[in-house]
Amino acid sequence: MSVENLTLAEIETLAKQTLLAGGCDENNAAAIADTVTRAERDGSTSHGLFRLPGYVKSMRSGKVDGKATPVIDNKMAAIVAVDGQGGYAPYTLQCALPVLAKAAQNTGIAVMRLHNSYHFAALWPEVEYLAEQNLVGLACTCFKPSVAPAGTSTAFFGTNPLAFAWPRPDKTPVVFDMATSRLAKGDVMLAAREGHDLPDGTGLGPDGQPSNDPHEVLKGVLLPFGGYKGSAISMMVELLSSALTGDQFSYEAEAQDNNDGGPARGGELIIAMSPDLIVGDGWRAHSEGFIAELSSLEGVRLPGERRHKNRQDTGTRAINSALLETIRGLSG
Amino acid sequence: MSVENLTLAEIETLAKQTLLAGGCDENNAAAIADTVTRAERDGSTSHGLFRLPGYVKSMRSGKVDGKATPVIDNKMAAIVAVDGQGGYAPYTLQCALPVLAKAAQNTGIAVMRLHNSYHFAALWPEVEYLAEQNLVGLACTCFKPSVAPAGTSTAFFGTNPLAFAWPRPDKTPVVFDMATSRLAKGDVMLAAREGHDLPDGTGLGPDGQPSNDPHEVLKGVLLPFGGYKGSAISMMVELLSSALTGDQFSYEAEAQDNNDGGPARGGELIIAMSPDLIVGDGWRAHSEGFIAELSSLEGVRLPGERRHKNRQDTGTRAINSALLETIRGLSG
Repeated sequence: MSVENLTLAEIETLAKQTLLAGGCDENNAAAIADTVTRAERDGSTSHGLFRLPGYVKSMRSGKVDGKATPVIDNKMAAIVAVDGQGGYAPYTLQCALPVLAKAAQNTGIAVMRLHNSYHFAALWPEVEYLAEQNLVGLACTCFKPSVAPAGTSTAFFGTNPLAFAWPRPDKTPVVFDMATSRLAKGDVMLAAREGHDLPDGTGLGPDGQPSNDPHEVLKGVLLPFGGYKGSAISMMVELLSSALTGDQFSYEAEAQDNNDGGPARGGELIIAMSPDLIVGDGWRAHSEGFIAELSSLEGVRLPGERRHKNRQDTGTRAINSALLETIRGLSG
Repeated sequence: MSVENLTLAEIETLAKQTLLAGGCDENNAAAIADTVTRAERDGSTSHGLFRLPGYVKSMRSGKVDGKATPVIDNKMAAIVAVDGQGGYAPYTLQCALPVLAKAAQNTGIAVMRLHNSYHFAALWPEVEYLAEQNLVGLACTCFKPSVAPAGTSTAFFGTNPLAFAWPRPDKTPVVFDMATSRLAKGDVMLAAREGHDLPDGTGLGPDGQPSNDPHEVLKGVLLPFGGYKGSAISMMVELLSSALTGDQFSYEAEAQDNNDGGPARGGELIIAMSPDLIVGDGWRAHSEGFIAELSSLEGVRLPGERRHKNRQDTGTRAINSALLETIRGLSG
């Protein structure tokens, strides 16, 4: 695979200019470019520059408003209701997360219901932000159907990620951000592009039979992780991120979307909790003791550890040349 | 297996009398007997009369105070801090859950941190109660180490159940209550007692090798469901139910417990959310539409459906005669 080495600043500039040329205003372009750059920085390539053509396509198709400004309502102390106004999630979150953090720091626990927004990015940036404010963060969203509930071979759930972050004093938080499918769709797309086989249990082909071929699984259906238990968690994500935000379930999104290839409109639910207010002094030492014990076990890797390690590398990132050519063509 | 058929009223009376004879006061005996009876009613036999000898043993060993009255603090509108005073969870929850429900109905979202309590029961009764008050319920707790984090063969996590309930108008809620191990310890104990093999992936024997023999796995270690993703969820449960309640992590519980065979002291975190306040009118029709679509898929069973079906049978329950003999011997 031919690659080109870009600095993080070059990645950010490229992303921002491409988004501005594609129809974003300054606020949205800057917020998305920051999200894309942080993904590349942390090695989450499936949420990095790889997504940029989709962002632009979704503005050109008329689906997403690249100039949207969110409307935030925090009339009730523990509820932050956010209308994304048909825009992308990154700028909306940049405006709304500080409101949620403040709310949780006042009340102990607060919830954000974000609706009327488009989610192309991972969820770890929002929960990681909350953890950096000494809060516990929990977030979920759903997508168009691509996962068969346990017992079926029909796509009904999205890949429905669930993200969690636990704050640590003077350290990067413990963070996970997992698709509730065996693999994230982005990983299957990457495998298809790069010609890798999929692990067993990832999905079924269009014939309803298990397949390790990413092209077959993209035409078929993904499976939940962990059988009926993972399926139940995916169902919970549907209810929390749709019925509790007032936005579309995965199956509704499929029916409403213009199918330009990008994510459909969707909701996101985020819960923030303040250990300082809920349990008081001592939680830091208590949880650090647990994390130290867990880390000491042979073979354990803390969730988020690999991303945070990648982050320490401030050098260039190797970007697929064909992808770069596509992206540069978008501004032409 | 020899069985005896008991009515639900007989089960409740037997449980209550046994608990009173074992050292419970009236309030605690009634609350635990109700919990045990509801488990038998719903077919959750691993949390029914099967647990009664353990309850009594834990009073006789001096570990649990069968006469405890919880102390409830709701000074902050969205936080309910509950000190179980070293007693059992059922009476504590009976006192504290209405406070949590009221809090969430006022604030939109509220959290209960329950500490200094002993959890012998399932978590579905508390989240189901919240759903009956038109609230979304989420609960978790942890236990003594019996599950190896992904990548290890060392018991470090408890079976760490996570429970969720979604309210439905005029219907039993959608409820799941799952161990984050491949199987619950209670199910492995039942399999050992009844001589069944375990499904693949349940656990490792004392030699660190996969085993389908429940006796071997009880001497060895359980595995998380769904590999590293289930392991991450189990880690989240540890942090929420211990660091955020101020009670013991599983590994701490092991070190502190008197090893009388019953659960160690532990925390429980419960989150309650009001869809009426968070999203407003329309959530019922919206979520009912989703549940109808999901239910219409060939092969799908809604979580909680089997329990709620069992519940409709108001007749007798077949109870293991040897277990009954043990229980009756406890009051002698």
